[in-house]
Amino acid sequence: MDFSGDILTRVLATGTFDILHPGHLYFLEQAKMLGDELYVIISRDVNVNHKPTPIIPENQRRMMVAALKPVDFALLGSLTDYFEPISEINPDIVVLGFDQKFQEKELEDALNERGFFPKVIRLSKADSNGEGEFYSSRRIAAEIIERKNKNQEID
Amino acid sequence: MDFSGDILTRVLATGTFDILHPGHLYFLEQAKMLGDELYVIISRDVNVNHKPTPIIPENQRRMMVAALKPVDFALLGSLTDYFEPISEINPDIVVLGFDQKFQEKELEDALNERGFFPKVIRLSKADSNGEGEFYSSRRIAAEIIERKNKNQEID
Repeated sequence: MDFSGDILTRVLATGTFDILHPGHLYFLEQAKMLGDELYVIISRDVNVNHKPTPIIPENQRRMMVAALKPVDFALLGSLTDYFEPISEINPDIVVLGFDQKFQEKELEDALNERGFFPKVIRLSKADSNGEGEFYSSRRIAAEIIERKNKNQEID
Repeated sequence: MDFSGDILTRVLATGTFDILHPGHLYFLEQAKMLGDELYVIISRDVNVNHKPTPIIPENQRRMMVAALKPVDFALLGSLTDYFEPISEINPDIVVLGFDQKFQEKELEDALNERGFFPKVIRLSKADSNGEGEFYSSRRIAAEIIERKNKNQEID
């Protein structure tokens, strides 16, 4: 319950957002539709441990996410405490992408322990209309490598 | 001179916008600041002849540019006539990126011949604050290939 008089619904999304693609966009558009203000926390380079280090440096990833229409605020995550920026934002809703490793219950419990009680909502995967091969940073990287292997020029 | 009663200044930018980076964003932000509405024409895959075929398919490139804050309208170029969408938009200003091959005078003459008299303005290069290596689609591709060559994982 929020008695602060703030009537805006704050939604929080987190992620790496390495090479931007429509899957990211769909995730952020869905998130924005759940409230009034969308905050996005960008994972720090050194904290991306569950998958390879991002191609794009963290400041550039933040800048590009901040430039997307659904995003109101994009900020870098904390180097030391995953939950630190969450306490500053005090979100009403925290969203999880279809492929984000956290379990809803696990995240909710961890937030509750710290005195935060947002709704945690798992979003669905973008329907890529048959163009799915480029709806992931990994697939974009794979296409680049494939062209290189065929000795095709890359701009 | 525009006697149509339309008081909005329409700015037109064109480009490939393959793998989005802050150089693209800076270009579009500068363009938007010159007027009220920013139209962006995205080059068709088959019409990109002066450099390698884009990694990202044209529909996806259009979708991602349309999602950027400075952009009001993003549309695919014509397959047959470079100037066709320009005649529909009737821009007051046409911008050129620092590295776009057209010469201002050449483009202005071609527009004038077709009955259009927009200002043609060459924009400057983004200052990349020392992170310049990722301010180009080519450099992003090169980083991906370098990691592959080092057998580093890529997400």
